[in-house]
Amino acid sequence: MLADEIGLIDQHCHGVVAADLDRPDFEALLGEGRRGTFASALGLAVRRWCAPVLGLPAHAVAEDYLARRAELGWREVSARLLRAAGVARWLVDTGFGFEDEFADLSGGEVAEIVRIETVAERVIAEKGCTAAAFDEIERSLRDGARNAAGLKSITAYRCGLDFPLRDTPPAPTALDARLTDPDALGWLVGLAARLSAELGLPLQFHTGFGDTDLRLHRADPLLLTDFLRATEHTGATVVLLHCWPFHRNAAYLAHAFPHVYLDLGLTIPHVGQRASAVLAETLELAPFDRLCYSSDGYGLAELHHLGARLWRRGMARVLAEWIADDVITPADADELVIAVAAGNAARVYPAATPRPRHGPDSPDRPLR
Amino acid sequence: MLADEIGLIDQHCHGVVAADLDRPDFEALLGEGRRGTFASALGLAVRRWCAPVLGLPAHAVAEDYLARRAELGWREVSARLLRAAGVARWLVDTGFGFEDEFADLSGGEVAEIVRIETVAERVIAEKGCTAAAFDEIERSLRDGARNAAGLKSITAYRCGLDFPLRDTPPAPTALDARLTDPDALGWLVGLAARLSAELGLPLQFHTGFGDTDLRLHRADPLLLTDFLRATEHTGATVVLLHCWPFHRNAAYLAHAFPHVYLDLGLTIPHVGQRASAVLAETLELAPFDRLCYSSDGYGLAELHHLGARLWRRGMARVLAEWIADDVITPADADELVIAVAAGNAARVYPAATPRPRHGPDSPDRPLR
Amino acid sequence: MLADEIGLIDQHCHGVVAADLDRPDFEALLGEGRRGTFASALGLAVRRWCAPVLGLPAHAVAEDYLARRAELGWREVSARLLRAAGVARWLVDTGFGFEDEFADLSGGEVAEIVRIETVAERVIAEKGCTAAAFDEIERSLRDGARNAAGLKSITAYRCGLDFPLRDTPPAPTALDARLTDPDALGWLVGLAARLSAELGLPLQFHTGFGDTDLRLHRADPLLLTDFLRATEHTGATVVLLHCWPFHRNAAYLAHAFPHVYLDLGLTIPHVGQRASAVLAETLELAPFDRLCYSSDGYGLAELHHLGARLWRRGMARVLAEWIADDVITPADADELVIAVAAGNAARVYPAATPRPRHGPDSPDRPLR
Repeated sequence: MLADEIGLIDQHCHGVVAADLDRPDFEALLGEGRRGTFASALGLAVRRWCAPVLGLPAHAVAEDYLARRAELGWREVSARLLRAAGVARWLVDTGFGFEDEFADLSGGEVAEIVRIETVAERVIAEKGCTAAAFDEIERSLRDGARNAAGLKSITAYRCGLDFPLRDTPPAPTALDARLTDPDALGWLVGLAARLSAELGLPLQFHTGFGDTDLRLHRADPLLLTDFLRATEHTGATVVLLHCWPFHRNAAYLAHAFPHVYLDLGLTIPHVGQRASAVLAETLELAPFDRLCYSSDGYGLAELHHLGARLWRRGMARVLAEWIADDVITPADADELVIAVAAGNAARVYPAATPRPRHGPDSPDRPLR
Repeated sequence: MLADEIGLIDQHCHGVVAADLDRPDFEALLGEGRRGTFASALGLAVRRWCAPVLGLPAHAVAEDYLARRAELGWREVSARLLRAAGVARWLVDTGFGFEDEFADLSGGEVAEIVRIETVAERVIAEKGCTAAAFDEIERSLRDGARNAAGLKSITAYRCGLDFPLRDTPPAPTALDARLTDPDALGWLVGLAARLSAELGLPLQFHTGFGDTDLRLHRADPLLLTDFLRATEHTGATVVLLHCWPFHRNAAYLAHAFPHVYLDLGLTIPHVGQRASAVLAETLELAPFDRLCYSSDGYGLAELHHLGARLWRRGMARVLAEWIADDVITPADADELVIAVAAGNAARVYPAATPRPRHGPDSPDRPLR
Repeated sequence: MLADEIGLIDQHCHGVVAADLDRPDFEALLGEGRRGTFASALGLAVRRWCAPVLGLPAHAVAEDYLARRAELGWREVSARLLRAAGVARWLVDTGFGFEDEFADLSGGEVAEIVRIETVAERVIAEKGCTAAAFDEIERSLRDGARNAAGLKSITAYRCGLDFPLRDTPPAPTALDARLTDPDALGWLVGLAARLSAELGLPLQFHTGFGDTDLRLHRADPLLLTDFLRATEHTGATVVLLHCWPFHRNAAYLAHAFPHVYLDLGLTIPHVGQRASAVLAETLELAPFDRLCYSSDGYGLAELHHLGARLWRRGMARVLAEWIADDVITPADADELVIAVAAGNAARVYPAATPRPRHGPDSPDRPLR
């Protein structure tokens, strides 16, 4: 089936750890907030699908998997897993570590997604909480956007998605070394939406589950409703990332607002065998020309690989069932696969952008 | 299977557009808030199930479907689709356009559902925001209820479902040409609940997804909990419409409150092939004697048709699986189908009411 | 399959009514808040699975089932159903009636779960709303905990799960004969969390659906996020009970916080045939070493029995599908069954505790 072979655009991922990992460090990265475990749907999927890529039998036990990983070395392992994902283009969020060697390892085209809070906090660290910082943040965002495929906000991790809508900057006292003030974030997101419209760059939002910094009920994409109304006719494009367990809510927003796109992101690798079920729930209301693919792979190339592998399996399963039930033709099913795999993202993100490069003088990024 | 053949009571729908539609107008009506597209589960269902009713092969492409629709004309198309739905009785919300010729086209019995906000706003337009308006609203509601099968509130679209409970009218300043004040709506809904008890008319609430006027998180039926507690022992009957993606929440409310009924309304046509999955989730907790059928068909007879068609398929599939698993007998499955198709609605709505008639002097209703 | 045979630890249940019941009383207990009906997924399950345990054919009609129940008498019926559940250890919440003869009837080991609000309210009834009550509540909780396997809070039924975090007692005026004050409950829960850490006793929370005392949207376990952050590194263990329809949210919390466990409790008997679907949704994100089993059986031994029966069927079905799809090995599937059936609970609850005994002078507990 086409879903098994088609080249993907991974519209949101991160880099991989450039080091060999012991079991605690590896296993931690199998969960959000470094709380992972092999005893999970994701752990089963690593053993089932990644082990053969490393030359092991399917279902190799964790010890054997990690021994083989150490034997091959992180670089070889990452290259194998990333290349076997069949991803033609990766859009990499560079605000959270690991991305330096990603392009070399992955073998695909790489473009950058600029995390707006990271840019703003870098400016605040330099300029302090002054009125001048506001202009400088805009300047820096414009500067970063020049080589980027999109913008991204992690406001869900800070004040939640019910931030106030602001067209003008708040008092400089709202700025802080770590941005958490709702007014400051509301202004920053509003600025990013204006840049999205002006520059033709999608603005991605983390929504749904993530690490323990998150209050998950504050990350329900429905809390963006007023923001989506305000931006609908401005030319801005909004992409809801991950979404689980609110993926039906996100599908509704894409149904209701023509400028809204969504993906399932890290949901797909994490839920393992259940990817088809979650995709089916999402397709209840999501317009077929608004659903995209991403892995949200972070730290471990296993996540990038499983995002692709399980998306392929999940889509193939859903569509095989629909074809068997005679509710879609094979040709229409192929068209749907093409749209979600790459077509929708190809339409909405700018085409090839200069590949981001980080020299030896780029600041170290902490492993959060 | 019985579900394929049984006559339905469609407990909540609207009329159809009395005009031929071009592609943009047709496609818009495939979505809430006129944002529809053929590239959706609903679009697939139109091509799969409605095309043959118009004499086309299943899965006809959109262009062919619309050409055939134009060839037959809206009147013939509507009559074919409505009559093939197998609906014996239609309860039509007359507060939102299109209903004039519905009875002639549909071939079934038609009764009226009175939208309470529409009645109130008509009075306010005449009387202004005066204390006299409150009495006149009650008088108009009683008048309208005389020939109606039920009442309906769209408070979810206005202030959300967590309106305050009020037994007495608020200050007249709370009234407005478009009712949005929570106190005014709380009073109006409370009045409707008293009329429901007094006149034996169910009071329907829009809950769950709808067009972009809605803040979906304010339309979670759980927000009605205090209202349901307050009305439980008054004799009022409450019907939760649509409910998705909160259909499990609505099922819980029907489980917890003996005066609460629910349906899946527009969910069924919109989710297409997934109707069986959504029905199964609803049947987890919904008492079998409290679930009803409706299509919420609006504007396009395709929606009325698919509501019925996909409900039949969905119920048949769920029950066939349960029978195969030996968790229900065929006889009990038939009883369940009868209850949801028509039995529960027949018990709760008043029997045959005078058919609403709109003369040539009835005001034009805008196509929102 | 192992799931069909393995001995269970039922980590949360109640006693059974020590009396023969007429139809209204029996049927009421098929629903939360005594609103049950045979016309439900649970009613079908009673007829399908419990009837044969009483010597009737599967799917016996309600009248026959109740006639047979009356013929055998509540004691024989309860003993048959409880013993056929295959439960090796029952953890019984003694704060809500019926538990006196449970150990004799059930044939398994019985340990006690202390309901903290019940203990606190007993103290307040004796001491009044005085500062002295706070110390006495702690003393009484310690006293009760000495023979208990765990603590339990029903704060969800009182102020909801977004209680304020408090380390110190509020003003005594916050105490009341029925504790509903958020500050008083926040203090009580905080005290229970400290005792959990100090004594090694899990602290269970009612979350998700329950009887009509509940505002379900206030019982979303996500509202515990701040509490879980505050207790993560204290040594406390938190168990989320029931969870439906928020079971995915609860699974996320277990994923995110290493001290969080969950079960599906009364969800399993209530959703009947859908148990496998709800289990599969939960396993999307719940770590396999953090999911437990309970029935939340209350009043009717049918609920204890169906909890076990439907959990066995549901787990067997999910895992058979996963094995057929080659995403888990049979050996790993067995390991998962063992963990959820009993292994996780055996690790987290203290081993054999003195069996609770209620002498003839124990106060009567009302049938709520």
